[in-house]
Order: sequence, then C-alpha cells, then structure tokens
Amino acid sequence: MAVGGLGLMGGSIALALRGRCRRLLGWDPDPAVVDLALETRVVDEAERLPDTIVARADLIVLAMPVAAIIDLLARLPPMQGGSPVILDLGSTKSAIVEAMASLPSRFDPIGGHPMCGKETPGLVNSQADLFQGAPFALTPLPRTTARARDLAEQLVRSIGACPLWIDAATHDRWVAATSHVPFLIAAALVLATPDETLPLAGPGLRSTSRLAASDPKMMLDILQTNRPAVLAALGAFQRELDVLESALARSADDQMDDRLTTAAARRRSSSFQARGGAVWTWS
Amino acid sequence: MAVGGLGLMGGSIALALRGRCRRLLGWDPDPAVVDLALETRVVDEAERLPDTIVARADLIVLAMPVAAIIDLLARLPPMQGGSPVILDLGSTKSAIVEAMASLPSRFDPIGGHPMCGKETPGLVNSQADLFQGAPFALTPLPRTTARARDLAEQLVRSIGACPLWIDAATHDRWVAATSHVPFLIAAALVLATPDETLPLAGPGLRSTSRLAASDPKMMLDILQTNRPAVLAALGAFQRELDVLESALARSADDQMDDRLTTAAARRRSSSFQARGGAVWTWS
Repeated sequence: MAVGGLGLMGGSIALALRGRCRRLLGWDPDPAVVDLALETRVVDEAERLPDTIVARADLIVLAMPVAAIIDLLARLPPMQGGSPVILDLGSTKSAIVEAMASLPSRFDPIGGHPMCGKETPGLVNSQADLFQGAPFALTPLPRTTARARDLAEQLVRSIGACPLWIDAATHDRWVAATSHVPFLIAAALVLATPDETLPLAGPGLRSTSRLAASDPKMMLDILQTNRPAVLAALGAFQRELDVLESALARSADDQMDDRLTTAAARRRSSSFQARGGAVWTWS
Repeated sequence: MAVGGLGLMGGSIALALRGRCRRLLGWDPDPAVVDLALETRVVDEAERLPDTIVARADLIVLAMPVAAIIDLLARLPPMQGGSPVILDLGSTKSAIVEAMASLPSRFDPIGGHPMCGKETPGLVNSQADLFQGAPFALTPLPRTTARARDLAEQLVRSIGACPLWIDAATHDRWVAATSHVPFLIAAALVLATPDETLPLAGPGLRSTSRLAASDPKMMLDILQTNRPAVLAALGAFQRELDVLESALARSADDQMDDRLTTAAARRRSSSFQARGGAVWTWS
C-alpha cells in the first residue's frame, strides 16, 4: 500500500494502518516531510516522487489537496506498475471522479472522503484515531470493480471510520452545506470582527470561527471544484440569516423566539450530532 | 455573599468561591434547583425567594438572564438589608446599568460579564474552573463606590478571571461582534442545513454551529437589549460574506485567495485567540 501526500490526512491514515498492511510506502514533494516520515516510522519507505512507489503498490491512497489529486491522476497513465486500486481522500468528488474516469483500464479507481480533520495541518499533527467514528464517503465509478469496493470498505473499517456509499454529485451537494458553507461563514466572521473587540472574545467566537484557520490554498481548490453547490447552499444560509435579521430589526420577538427555539432543538438533537456507526447507502 | 440564580453561571461562581467567603447564600425560583444546590453543598443556604437572602448579604451576585436581572433590580428597593454591593453577570450591560442607576442610594451597584460559558446550561453542568483565564468585563456606574470596585475586582481575580474595566455601551458594541453575531450565524446555519446532508456532517459543522444550542429565551433577552449594536455587527458580517460570495460566483480566485489567506492568518494569530492575563482598561 502507498500513501501519496504525507500531510495531516495521509500521515493519519498511515498511522491508523501501521501494522495492518505488509509494507507501507509513501511519497511527498517536501523533502523535510519525507525525512520526518522516515524518522518517525510513519511509513516504511518514502520518496519525493511517486513513480517508484506507484510501480510497487496494490492500493494507492491519494491524500493530497483536490487540485494535486487531479494533477496526479493525469500523470499516472505512463507510470510503471500493475493494476492498483486508486482511492483518494479529496474533499470534493465530482471533479476527481471525472478525472478518474479517464484513467487507463488497468487502474481500478474509487473516490473517498473521510469526514474528519483538524485546522492544524501537517504530518506533525497526524493522529491514528483521527478517523474513529467518522463517516467516510465512498463514491464508486461505474467501472469500479467489486475488488476495489471491498478493499476500500475494508480500509475504511480498519481505520475505525464508517463507510457511506454515495454518488459524487450528491456528496458534493451535501458537503457544500455541511462543510464548505461553514468554512466561508467562519472566514467572513473573522474578517468582520474588529480588532478592538477581541479582548471580549470568548469560547463562542473561537468555536464559530475555528474553520477559518483552514489552509487557504486547500480550501480554494475545494471551492473551485464545487462552485454551484456552494453558491446554492450559501444562498440558503443567507436567506435564514436574513429572516433572523429582519425579525431582530422589526422587534418580531415571537418569530425570533420560534426560529431560535427550532435551531436550538435541532442542534441538540442526536441527528444533528450523529456520527457513523452503520453503513449508510444512498444511490 | 449571595448568588441569585443557581444555573450554570451562578453554580460555577459559587463553586469557584467555595471556601473563599464566610457564608455562601443562594436563591433560585426552581425548587428542584434549590434542593440540588443544598444536597451538593454548592451553597450553604438556599431559598426559592430572594427576600431573606438579600437581607443578609454584603455582596449580591445576580447570575440570571438579562430580563430576570432587570426584573429583580426593580424588586430590590423594598427589600430589607444593609448596603450591599450588587454585581450582575448579565450578557448585555447598557440596559442593566440603566436599571441599576435607579436603585436607592443604599445599594452599591456595578455591572459585570464573564466571557465564558457552555452550551449545556444548569447547575448540574457547573464547574469551578469555568472562569479560569477568561476576560471578565466590569462596567461601573458613576455612583459605583471604590469599595464596590475593589470587591468586584477581588471576586474576579479569586475565581481566576481577568478583570477588564469598560463602559457599558462599548461592552455591548464589542459583544455584539464577538458573541451575539456568532450566535445568530450558528442558528442560521443550523436552520439552513438540510436533514438529508447530516450523515456527512463532520467536526467543522459541529464547531461552527455549537452556539445554536444556547438557551433561546436567554439569547432572546440578550438580543432584545442589544438590538442596534447586533444589527450593525450583523451588517458588517453580511458585507464580508457577500464579498466572498461574489468572488466565488465570479471565479475571482485571486480575490478569494487574498481574503481566505487574510482570514486564516488572523484566526491563527495570538490576538484572535488571546484570553486575559492582565487587567485591560478602556475608558
């Protein structure tokens, strides 16, 4: 097995799989990361370039930003090797699955996306239990073989995550609402909060704005490959916020009470907080 | 010393002060809370009504929702007793300080607001270390005596918080940005996120939406007593979000990159995350 990109996600998946696969290979363009991965034995072998690693792997996990995954998929065809399963961990799936569809037939691709992470990136922040209990979206292509499906589901379960089979377009629509809009909100909140007010910042501001610390380049990739779905979900958010603003401006306290009570009940409900535990399947 | 309202804040301040004052009295309208406070020895004595407690206290801490504080301040004048210092913990300060200004001269009032909390309310969730390292706004009135200022600052320090002297109007403007707008954002996000998408909800959505679980009645009080400042801060947020939305819609990736990079750097900076540690004074 090989992991491409030894950042937070790639490092964490390598840690979670340590001892569960015969030999763990990895690559990362940053030589300092390659050195660190070898020193800390996150992987058994590591290189700066994918070529020799790809040639020897049965399962290749692409744990890079979305644009880097798409770029790597374009560079795969001439590389030596057998018939590896290619699983990616990219945050949007339609553009990646589309790029996967163009791979030569000897490759066996399947899309993936674990719903976990931290705002502190990099191999140094990796942790073996990052995936514990997290939903892990799996987005097969029509060409994806039963072998690739089985291997992907086995990997997901062995790192403690919960497989969720879903098509790429639905995945992208859902994460626009659950992930990309929350990020944009957090960024706008950070930009809108005046410096002078920060001495009165408490845990509420920190929690609401946490996602704004996410890597900007990575998020830009994500937004670029999910533009229509993000704009639609953002519109839905803005409409709800406009309702609250209007109720506040008009002193419509009954309406405000009703909206806030609904929001609190929903946020406290188990459905809103639930993590995996079972396999969910959507067609 | 007496604590009015034995919820999360009142309970936590009582726990934080246990052993630091001669005798701790408390009241709460809920008989079950009174029983629990006595059973768990959060206070030495507890009643359902304030009258006999107020009559015996030198320092009265009002740890109730804003509307209940204003209501209690109106009911204080006829109550028996000496010349107690009245410190409140309400989340907005202008309306409370205005109500305090009408108290008979034997009362020695000062406004207060600890910048901490949890979305899980009630005495059962109280914790002695809730205030550790948190900024604690203190908003004196022109009539507030040196004795009340000293006692309030001593209390703030003894629970591990950092006194921040500030006028009520400035406080309200600042918390509109750091606290009330984040709450409204979280509520709108919860209301806008479709049920079907929740299987893909990860820690990002949970963090960004956490404040939406806050008690709706308490938040309604807060919004009602800080309407103009909240509307102004909400407008600033909406303008920043509109900039991001427009950049996304126009594929203005350079502008988006610039905004997201600024937001990430700001969110990661110590100034954005800082808690107290010193006394801050604004006039």
